[in-house]
Amino acid sequence: MSAAGSPSGERAPRGRRAGHSETREQILAAAREAFAEAGFRGATIRGIAATAGVDPALVHHFFGSKDDLFLAALQMPVDPREVLAAATSGPPEEIGERLLGAFLSVWDDPTARLPLVALVRAGISGEPGRTLLETALNRLIFGAVARALDVDRVEERTALVASQMLGLIGARYLLELEPMASMSREQVIAWVAPTVQRYLTGPLPAASPS
Amino acid sequence: MSAAGSPSGERAPRGRRAGHSETREQILAAAREAFAEAGFRGATIRGIAATAGVDPALVHHFFGSKDDLFLAALQMPVDPREVLAAATSGPPEEIGERLLGAFLSVWDDPTARLPLVALVRAGISGEPGRTLLETALNRLIFGAVARALDVDRVEERTALVASQMLGLIGARYLLELEPMASMSREQVIAWVAPTVQRYLTGPLPAASPS
Repeated sequence: MSAAGSPSGERAPRGRRAGHSETREQILAAAREAFAEAGFRGATIRGIAATAGVDPALVHHFFGSKDDLFLAALQMPVDPREVLAAATSGPPEEIGERLLGAFLSVWDDPTARLPLVALVRAGISGEPGRTLLETALNRLIFGAVARALDVDRVEERTALVASQMLGLIGARYLLELEPMASMSREQVIAWVAPTVQRYLTGPLPAASPS
Repeated sequence: MSAAGSPSGERAPRGRRAGHSETREQILAAAREAFAEAGFRGATIRGIAATAGVDPALVHHFFGSKDDLFLAALQMPVDPREVLAAATSGPPEEIGERLLGAFLSVWDDPTARLPLVALVRAGISGEPGRTLLETALNRLIFGAVARALDVDRVEERTALVASQMLGLIGARYLLELEPMASMSREQVIAWVAPTVQRYLTGPLPAASPS
């Protein structure tokens, strides 16, 4: 993100501004396409630059790292790395409450959630949005949460948390189901944080034989 | 077309079959539109019949009650009234497991879930699908679950269950997030049934002051 406001970019002559921002948009569109088609690993700065018709160095100059470019392409309202760093530090027995609080503080903000709603809607509709959303979850969220925990079957646990969070998004923000839509943030946390906490740090359940 | 709807419609000569099923489709299309625009209460058999250009008696003849027509319009693969009657009878302390088992037995069947996937995708995309999905949840599921329980704040509880179930749908069937997508049914039940059970019959949480 810091690279987006690189010194030379900020001081570009006025006459270049339009072309400048057009080029940025072309790079972002090429990036969204590449990440949606090939996922995070499969997408390359070189390929994105080629699609946008610019030099790879310009992509780095405008957007910094591939992670930064990914965040810019998704129009993330906040940097999930910062939000998750705060939410995953502190006592592990409160990680459910902290994660859910961080999640709601972003999603309860109508402006912040606009690009996120678009990302989820496109993800649910099928390809290419599905790969983009899956990539965002894996790259931006699951890894950071898993690294903060010392538990067995962490991928299963983060997927379960994703299921509860996705459902909250669906019920509270997309369908606006009452009384879920107008429940206070504190009430949602009081109900749902124990679920997130159990999925993340609770004992593995014994599956009964089918 | 009117002949197709006569009481002897079922016994119509072979040559008339096409018109018969065309009329049924017109009624179902009109019903979907009416339920999506006006919800269950707002939609009327009279209005649906008018849109389809048939007599209201024909709608009753083909589809029975308004509830039956609603199920047919949604192309429900099973009758939720029967599924829920079975799932909500029995000990209340196992209702989470039974509901989740019933839910998964329908959704894990690739053929049965096709119309349900369409309903959820349309619901998440905004109007008019949103009203149709909300109406389906309220009319077919929440009421039946609420009637089976004797608890405070039952609407809040069923909305919370809906959030977990919607998220399961999103993660397991729409995004096909691993390892959630290939988890066994028993494993999903072992992890998630306690969540559903707590939302439905657990003590009301004390929300901490913000």
